[in-house]
Amino acid sequence: MKEFQLIEKYFREQGLKRKDVELSIGDDCALVQPAENKSIAISCDTLVENVHFLPSIPPRALGYKSLAVNLSDLASMGAEPAWMTLALTMPSVDESWLASFSQGLFEAAEYYGVSLIGGDTTRGPLSINITIHGQVPTGKALKRSGAQNGDWIYVTGTLGDSALGLDILRGNVSVSAEHEGYLINRHYNPTPRVLAGQALRTLATSAIDLSDGLVSDIQHILKASDVGANIEVDAIPMSPSLLESVSPQEALGYALTGGEDYELLFTVPESQRGAIDTALIHAGVKFVKIGQICPGNKLKLTLKGEPFEPTFYGFEHF
Amino acid sequence: MKEFQLIEKYFREQGLKRKDVELSIGDDCALVQPAENKSIAISCDTLVENVHFLPSIPPRALGYKSLAVNLSDLASMGAEPAWMTLALTMPSVDESWLASFSQGLFEAAEYYGVSLIGGDTTRGPLSINITIHGQVPTGKALKRSGAQNGDWIYVTGTLGDSALGLDILRGNVSVSAEHEGYLINRHYNPTPRVLAGQALRTLATSAIDLSDGLVSDIQHILKASDVGANIEVDAIPMSPSLLESVSPQEALGYALTGGEDYELLFTVPESQRGAIDTALIHAGVKFVKIGQICPGNKLKLTLKGEPFEPTFYGFEHF
Repeated sequence: MKEFQLIEKYFREQGLKRKDVELSIGDDCALVQPAENKSIAISCDTLVENVHFLPSIPPRALGYKSLAVNLSDLASMGAEPAWMTLALTMPSVDESWLASFSQGLFEAAEYYGVSLIGGDTTRGPLSINITIHGQVPTGKALKRSGAQNGDWIYVTGTLGDSALGLDILRGNVSVSAEHEGYLINRHYNPTPRVLAGQALRTLATSAIDLSDGLVSDIQHILKASDVGANIEVDAIPMSPSLLESVSPQEALGYALTGGEDYELLFTVPESQRGAIDTALIHAGVKFVKIGQICPGNKLKLTLKGEPFEPTFYGFEHF
Repeated sequence: MKEFQLIEKYFREQGLKRKDVELSIGDDCALVQPAENKSIAISCDTLVENVHFLPSIPPRALGYKSLAVNLSDLASMGAEPAWMTLALTMPSVDESWLASFSQGLFEAAEYYGVSLIGGDTTRGPLSINITIHGQVPTGKALKRSGAQNGDWIYVTGTLGDSALGLDILRGNVSVSAEHEGYLINRHYNPTPRVLAGQALRTLATSAIDLSDGLVSDIQHILKASDVGANIEVDAIPMSPSLLESVSPQEALGYALTGGEDYELLFTVPESQRGAIDTALIHAGVKFVKIGQICPGNKLKLTLKGEPFEPTFYGFEHF
């Protein structure tokens, strides 16, 4: 099957058609009409086989997750999802793989209101690159650089599930059947906190999504905002599945350094704490206070009031 | 060297800073402010080693060409280049390679007014994916679908040079030293016809850039516009280097089916022929009439007034 036919069959005919898409797949460029008084938020993420996902990942989960991780970047800026391009590199044309992959991709795209507007399919080792575009009222985007001394630090959801899910898939850990499905699902199908990010837009001073692990990702806020932070590790939210599957110390390791949770970490001034409660309840997201921004540029961890020195760090490529 | 430091060193600190970039590399998303009354043109292209380029390509040429092929997509829509994201996958960190690659990339970016606003660096087999963004007055973009019966068909520059340059690099053909440099340069450093595309915006009825070869690419216009075309193959513009290096028949083969010329093919109604002459002289681009749009959905080739049946076809991936 030829490239053009392939793209048409699985990607051109499916999915959401947004009204602001003037021209979609099928010309040299797509054309979109941005809304007035909005900035465009743009991010791209590549997922490479054996680096970002195991060869055993079901193609439907891969399609879903490829978009979800990009949506998470929009969420952390408080942007509304709009358009994406997909560059798909694959070793050969496998129609059943394509059918499942596109199903997962469009499932996420339709739920979050994203139109696929362009793409490129090439032969090579499996990798998926998505460039995502969102819109945010100009001047209202959540950045990493706005955290202030005294702000409270919050996270959404629970941390560490995805990393334990990955260890189960790798065969490094085995857990009860009761928890296995939940943990693997958290790894395969992370929930980008899109509505929560938008709700936080006028309330939080900074935000980031947790892709590499809390201890690693919070450093970006500290560096960009020129502040330090105290995190109470006993306040870190962890799921019953994580806590019941490994030792307390291991659970904390997963929660502090495990990657791919795609929860939001954000900072809120004392004056907005009440408003945050209301805003996030409407977004249907659980969240919890885990610490406070402080002077200096260091991250301090405390456990039951005592300094806590972790012996593990977030993972990075290279 | 860690991923973040790597990106910062070679990509964050360099390049053009456009005023409409509110936030560049360094947060979860970039933020850009689109101009009023303009649509955004978006396209992405991936270049994979051994598929789209030979391992022997100098990294500076690869950096330049990776952006040039994307700019060519903007050119064919008549859009003004603005912003790009870069997803770079490479097997290992080679600083001298990165220095040369980024030099070539930023050379093209600065010349054409493009800011690098985001990116992603991952470990894997070498590939380069760029998503390019341009702006075009809403309703004025050149599309593939506007060709009308009777319109004249033009191309810019000369055709076939790049494909012969590639055959020289592959060792399939040897040519005189006089022509070798020119032909290889046309393969490594194609000139995206950005100004010509903008000049054609209100004059041409359709346009496309020639990436896969004339015979293959014109079919996209015929299909999208529901028309046919007569091409006079004796009118196809060919360089002295091409004509003096291979037989007349081989030269025609390169010109009709050789890929990667990145010249523009466009259609012009009789009423605009005079205006086109003036507009493209200002853009500094040579162009020539090679045929005419006709009813039916077929491409007909004639040589000295006689039907001409080529025995070769444009190449496609997969």
